[in-house]
Amino acid sequence: MKICIIGANGMVGKKLVKKMLSSDLYKTKIKQICLFDINFNKKNDETNLTYINGNIADIKQIKKIASERFDMIFHLAAIVSGEAEENFEKGWNVNLFSMWHLLEALRKEHFKSSKKYIPKLIFTSSIAVFGAPFPEKINDEFLSSPQTSYGAQKASAELLISDFSRKGYINGMSLRLPTICVRPGLPNKAASGFFSNIIREPLNGQKAYLPVDKSVRHWHASPRAATSFLMHAALMDTSLLENRTSLNLPGVSCTVEEQIEALRSVAGQKVVDLIIFKKDENIQKMVLGWPKDFFSKKASELGFIAEKNFEEIIKIHIEDELK
Amino acid sequence: MKICIIGANGMVGKKLVKKMLSSDLYKTKIKQICLFDINFNKKNDETNLTYINGNIADIKQIKKIASERFDMIFHLAAIVSGEAEENFEKGWNVNLFSMWHLLEALRKEHFKSSKKYIPKLIFTSSIAVFGAPFPEKINDEFLSSPQTSYGAQKASAELLISDFSRKGYINGMSLRLPTICVRPGLPNKAASGFFSNIIREPLNGQKAYLPVDKSVRHWHASPRAATSFLMHAALMDTSLLENRTSLNLPGVSCTVEEQIEALRSVAGQKVVDLIIFKKDENIQKMVLGWPKDFFSKKASELGFIAEKNFEEIIKIHIEDELK
Repeated sequence: MKICIIGANGMVGKKLVKKMLSSDLYKTKIKQICLFDINFNKKNDETNLTYINGNIADIKQIKKIASERFDMIFHLAAIVSGEAEENFEKGWNVNLFSMWHLLEALRKEHFKSSKKYIPKLIFTSSIAVFGAPFPEKINDEFLSSPQTSYGAQKASAELLISDFSRKGYINGMSLRLPTICVRPGLPNKAASGFFSNIIREPLNGQKAYLPVDKSVRHWHASPRAATSFLMHAALMDTSLLENRTSLNLPGVSCTVEEQIEALRSVAGQKVVDLIIFKKDENIQKMVLGWPKDFFSKKASELGFIAEKNFEEIIKIHIEDELK
Repeated sequence: MKICIIGANGMVGKKLVKKMLSSDLYKTKIKQICLFDINFNKKNDETNLTYINGNIADIKQIKKIASERFDMIFHLAAIVSGEAEENFEKGWNVNLFSMWHLLEALRKEHFKSSKKYIPKLIFTSSIAVFGAPFPEKINDEFLSSPQTSYGAQKASAELLISDFSRKGYINGMSLRLPTICVRPGLPNKAASGFFSNIIREPLNGQKAYLPVDKSVRHWHASPRAATSFLMHAALMDTSLLENRTSLNLPGVSCTVEEQIEALRSVAGQKVVDLIIFKKDENIQKMVLGWPKDFFSKKASELGFIAEKNFEEIIKIHIEDELK
C-alpha cells in the first residue's frame, strides 16, 4: 500500500505521520508514505518515507501525485480562514480549484488502464461549512450555509469529492473537523486562536487574553482526536457512508467558562489567574456566528470517537506536548 | 436599467422575456434587455432588445457580459441533468466553472471604478441539489446532498453566488425551481419528462406512456410560476435573504395518481384513457431518489407563489399553450 499525505508538514499532518509510523497498518501493509508540503523544516530518516516539496496549486505537481497511483491520499492542505478571507482569489484557487485539478488527474488515471484505479481520498473539511442561525445541536441533516470564504470553499470541495465518489472514480470522504484545541506551538492570529491560547499559555506560565464572554460555547476536539479520526477513516469501508460522504465528527461542546473550570481542576487557580479578560467586540461578534454544538450521530455510529470533556482535552495536551 | 438574460432562448428564458416585455418594470425602468444564448431561432423586433449568440463556457463572452455592467443578470443557462451525467467534464465546466468565470469578471468590474458595480444576479438552481433519503417534507434547513452531477454543480454554483454576495461583489440569489410541469413542446428524453408527457400528449389527442407507479409523489410548478418566481426575485430586496441566498421555492406536491385525477376532472375520461402504463424499472428507481415534498416557508414568506393544486397547473397549460 502506498499513501500520500498532502499538507504533511502542518500541525495535524505531522501528528498523522507520527501516528501512522507506529501503527499496525504501517508495519503490515504500507510500503511507502509520500509526504507532500510546501516546505519541510525537518525530515525523518525512516526508509519508507519520501518527500515532495511542492505547491498543490501547481497542476504539474498534482499530475505527478496522480501518476503515482497512491492507494490512499490524505488531503490536509488549505489556505486557512483568515488568509482566504483576505486573499479571495487565492483562497478559491487553492482550496477549490486545486481540488478539482487533483480529482480530474485521478479520474484520468482511473481510465488509463484496464485495472481501474480508484484511490481512497480523505479530505479534512471543517465545521466552517456551517453558518448561523443554528439549532441548539446541529444534526447530520443540517444545511451547509458557510459565512466565510474558507467555509464555502470547503463545502464546494466536499461536493466535488461526493460526486467523483458517486461516479466511482474515487472512494472519497470529507471529515468536518471540530476546532482543534489545544493547538500546540506559538499563539496564532486566527480569530479562534484564543480557545487554545487561554489553556496553552497559562500552562506555560504565560499570560493569555480572553477576548469573548465566558458564556461563549464552541465545539472542540484535541489534535490527538484529529489524528485518530484520520486513522479511523483510513481503515473504514466508505460504502457505509451511503452516498453522503461528508461527516460531522464528534467533539466536546463547552463554554469558555467550562474550559476555564477544567483548567482550574487540572492545573489549579494560579494557572487560571494568568487568563486576562480583555474583550474584543469584533471577535465576540464573529464567534457568535460559529457552531456551538452537534449531534454527530452518523460519525459516532461509524466508530469515530472524540474526548468526553474538556478536562480530557487538557490532559492530552499536557501528555503530548508538555512531557 | 440594463438587464441580461443568459439562456434567453430556453423554455423558461423565452417565457421570461415575453413576461418582462409586458411588465411595468419594462415600461418604466428598463432601457435594454440583452438576450444571450447559443442560438436564437427567432428574433423579436422590440427596439430595446439586443441579442448575443454565444457560449457561456467562452471566457471572452463572459468578460464581454461583465464589461456591459448590466444592473441585473438572470442566469438560466445549463447543461441539463442527462447530459451532465453522460459528459462529466463538460457538465462541471459549463455549470460550475463558467459561473466562476462570470462571477470573477463581475468582481473585477466591481473594483474598476470608484462607483462600485454590484449587479443583481438571479440564478436558476434546482431541487436536484437534494438527494435521498428525505424527511416527509424538506424544510429550508435540510442539507444539500445531490445524487447527480447536475445537482452537485448547481449546489456548488450556489455556494459561489452566496460567497460573492456575502463579500458585497454581487447581490445574488439562487432559486431552487421545482420540476417544471407541464413543459410545452415535444416530449424530451429526460427521465422526469413523463410528468409532463402524460398531461401534454393526451390533451393533444396523443398516447403517452407512464413508466412509474401511480403512487410516485413529486414536486411541480408551472412554467408560468417559474417566470413569476424570476420576476418576483427581480423586484425583491436581496438583503431579506439574510446571507442564505438559496431558496426552496413553493410548488405542488402530488402523486401521479393525483395528476391523472386532475386531468380527468379538467379534460374527461377519454383523454385519461390515452395514458398507457408501461413500467420502466430504471426510471422508477431513479424517481424514488427525487424530492417529493417541501415546506418552503422562507420563500412563501418572501412572497413567492406557486399553484395551489395540479388542476390549476393543467388549466395554465391549456390557457398558455393550447389556446
